[in-house]
Amino acid sequence: MSKKLTKREVDYSKWYNELVVRADLAENSGVRGCMVIKPYGYAIWEKMQAELDKKFKETGHENAYFPLFIPKSYFSKEASHVDGFAKECAVVTHYRLKNSEDGKGVVVDPDAKLEEELIVRPTSETIIWDTYRKWIESYRDLPLLINQWANVVRWEMRTRLFLRTAEFLWQEGHTAHATEQEAINEAELILEIYADFAEKYMAMPVIKGLKTENERFAGAIETYCIEGLMQDGKALQAGTSHFLGQNFAKAFDVKFTSKEGKQEFVWATSWGVSTRLMGALIMTHSDDLGLVLPPNLAPIQVVIVPIYRNDEQLDTISEKVQNIVKELRKRGVSVKFDNRSTHKPGWKFAEYELKGVPLRIAIGPRDLEEGTLEVARRDTLSKETVSQENVVDYVEKTLAEIQESIYKKALDYRESHITKVDTFEEFKEVLNTKGGFILAHWDGTSETEDKIKELTKATIRCIPLEGEIEEGKCVLTGNKSARRVLFAKAY
Amino acid sequence: MSKKLTKREVDYSKWYNELVVRADLAENSGVRGCMVIKPYGYAIWEKMQAELDKKFKETGHENAYFPLFIPKSYFSKEASHVDGFAKECAVVTHYRLKNSEDGKGVVVDPDAKLEEELIVRPTSETIIWDTYRKWIESYRDLPLLINQWANVVRWEMRTRLFLRTAEFLWQEGHTAHATEQEAINEAELILEIYADFAEKYMAMPVIKGLKTENERFAGAIETYCIEGLMQDGKALQAGTSHFLGQNFAKAFDVKFTSKEGKQEFVWATSWGVSTRLMGALIMTHSDDLGLVLPPNLAPIQVVIVPIYRNDEQLDTISEKVQNIVKELRKRGVSVKFDNRSTHKPGWKFAEYELKGVPLRIAIGPRDLEEGTLEVARRDTLSKETVSQENVVDYVEKTLAEIQESIYKKALDYRESHITKVDTFEEFKEVLNTKGGFILAHWDGTSETEDKIKELTKATIRCIPLEGEIEEGKCVLTGNKSARRVLFAKAY
Repeated sequence: MSKKLTKREVDYSKWYNELVVRADLAENSGVRGCMVIKPYGYAIWEKMQAELDKKFKETGHENAYFPLFIPKSYFSKEASHVDGFAKECAVVTHYRLKNSEDGKGVVVDPDAKLEEELIVRPTSETIIWDTYRKWIESYRDLPLLINQWANVVRWEMRTRLFLRTAEFLWQEGHTAHATEQEAINEAELILEIYADFAEKYMAMPVIKGLKTENERFAGAIETYCIEGLMQDGKALQAGTSHFLGQNFAKAFDVKFTSKEGKQEFVWATSWGVSTRLMGALIMTHSDDLGLVLPPNLAPIQVVIVPIYRNDEQLDTISEKVQNIVKELRKRGVSVKFDNRSTHKPGWKFAEYELKGVPLRIAIGPRDLEEGTLEVARRDTLSKETVSQENVVDYVEKTLAEIQESIYKKALDYRESHITKVDTFEEFKEVLNTKGGFILAHWDGTSETEDKIKELTKATIRCIPLEGEIEEGKCVLTGNKSARRVLFAKAY
Repeated sequence: MSKKLTKREVDYSKWYNELVVRADLAENSGVRGCMVIKPYGYAIWEKMQAELDKKFKETGHENAYFPLFIPKSYFSKEASHVDGFAKECAVVTHYRLKNSEDGKGVVVDPDAKLEEELIVRPTSETIIWDTYRKWIESYRDLPLLINQWANVVRWEMRTRLFLRTAEFLWQEGHTAHATEQEAINEAELILEIYADFAEKYMAMPVIKGLKTENERFAGAIETYCIEGLMQDGKALQAGTSHFLGQNFAKAFDVKFTSKEGKQEFVWATSWGVSTRLMGALIMTHSDDLGLVLPPNLAPIQVVIVPIYRNDEQLDTISEKVQNIVKELRKRGVSVKFDNRSTHKPGWKFAEYELKGVPLRIAIGPRDLEEGTLEVARRDTLSKETVSQENVVDYVEKTLAEIQESIYKKALDYRESHITKVDTFEEFKEVLNTKGGFILAHWDGTSETEDKIKELTKATIRCIPLEGEIEEGKCVLTGNKSARRVLFAKAY
């Protein structure tokens, strides 16, 4: 706790890396690009999972589990899919080790070579659609609404904790439908669930949109996405929902008998969010003192720190606190009473600031006399003296206020960082000074998109689903543009 | 639903394989030895997870997540550990595919060979203890009580759904302690949690014991285990908890500063249960008609099937049922009203029998007139007519009765299948006729254990922790024996 975090304005990237480690969220492991998610970080991820899982189940989805390994040949069946993932695959080629001849360790046993290599799943469309062929015969078997919580591996060259790691945790939904429209509805329903979760739980405002062809998922007809904006003005894709058309059904020969008795290919979606959301959560709200967590996802919502000079005072405080703890828990508030004698109050204050606990209550001998407590808000760093009688109501009300307030703050930031530009000069200037999202006209071609990326590092984050549609001229080529799209530099 | 299951007495193994697939629990995938856990099977696993996770957290454990991959060199650090796992490892050697020269598919890119091969974790002691070295400095950091829910891979040659699969799901606890006694206490605490879960939730009686050296976990000083008995008289190891001593701390150089200021090696435990428990659950209770599930783990505890001739009757029934459903849900009973018009009541009855739903309620026009319902128990197949007014109480009471009753039945079976034998002739005869556990004297040597295994296929399941200790003579060698141990053929 001795050393302060690097300030955001000094080095945002360094601030992030330090914060993730110092707040006990995650750290790099001895395996290149693979992270260890520490208990405090994992507790936040569990809260995310619980909420998303509930929403999926409420909308009729069931969980299942498919193999970690995918035979190499499955990969080749959907052409654009293999192009998208082949370059970053972990490949299992052998199934046994043996003692080395020098007796000093183990080596791969050359006699244990697999006939067909196995790919560690980077995503599961292929193995799942190979399975769906056996599950789907008639329209009665549809829709098939399945989700999987799993680990996946993509061999990224440059990795960063949570944002881009070789192995990450995620959920991947894979659904099968009788009609095109039903599949599109499903992809859109999931997008709404993701957006709602981001805003209500993560307190992170997001823009819903469609990806351009360049940024689409390998194998999708349309990719819907939610895009957040981080405090350094860079965008972060927080979730995607794909309408896959009949691509995977055709690649894996999945047909069904329709009500009319015809054999038709099945329509598909897939969708996912990952531990990347942890990165988004951290970067949306946190400050130079540490994490700022939304109460709806904070593993500890309230911490109570006793201030005392002797055991007798601690006993009196503890007695008072026990009742408050009990009452708060009754209302579903997660509260920790940190009565460790090994650390001083000041140390604890800094620790819980670093860890983003939304409310901190301090109680000392004077408070006992006066029937008060000191309640400090993590987001605003403001303190208030509250009577012990009212503290439970006060905490409940304030937690709701914090949840709303940090959302509002992030939304204000985001709104003030969407800039309409009409010339490429302006485009570059806004990008390099103010940052954030840029609403600009684009002629609709991949070439122009590539050129803009090459010149500025900005990509089209999405074609927004909401907002007015206005014709104009492409910011780069001057060609006709049907509408403005959203550019940004992105994680 | 047309074809009946193979009967247990005809071919127990075939019965099991058919049942797992037909009851929609799991199936084989296109990947050798890897299963697909289907939604109904996964829902049971989720219930197991939820209960175990609660028990772990109540006893101070936190969840975390460690990498899927383990560098090969980590493996060699603990000698007996590598011996135990090297022969069944999936090995990642490359990180990229490329298009094949004939343009017809993808091949492993030889330029993308890893400098050091990565092992897909068969268990995580090595990668976790490599991490603990960074986390543990002083006695203040202890105990460290961590659990992980994860997939692991052991390249088994002969696989069977749930019982032995190349990839399986499990939890693995890894704890670090300041003293030997604390670590032993932890291993024993977890054994109690496992046994309690098996008995109260799975309704499966288990015998708690210690493994002999032959059967011990690779790297452990002591392995505690729970052993269940299946209906074919074979034992099944359902969970293990290992006291690891300082083996891994020494292999990975994990020391702490004690209260007295000395540098000491940390003491360790690890413990796990897996999707193998699904196999144990299925085999303990199910019958020739299908699954029998304990109410405490059944995804659907009560199914209500309407019997009607026209829509009007269905409407009247539905109205009645809605109230019952609401009342049952209020009491935490999971209930499904199957009003599908695509299937006949008889078909549904057989379907829910196959899937082991503990209680089935049928309601028809006559019941409406008389204010009754027909409630059928899956375990005893008995039916009772119950008044609609009392049905909620009746269901609640009966679910509790079923839970107790199937436990009792399994316990009776187990008790009647523990046989004390004093000669090797008797040993072989009991094993080949009656089966089950055999309590026999053993001289305490690995050689004798091996010899008995070679001659009979029976192994020492455990040295029981409970029961009287009586000296005698080894059933094979006649040498002195300090106590009887528990033999059986095992899964």
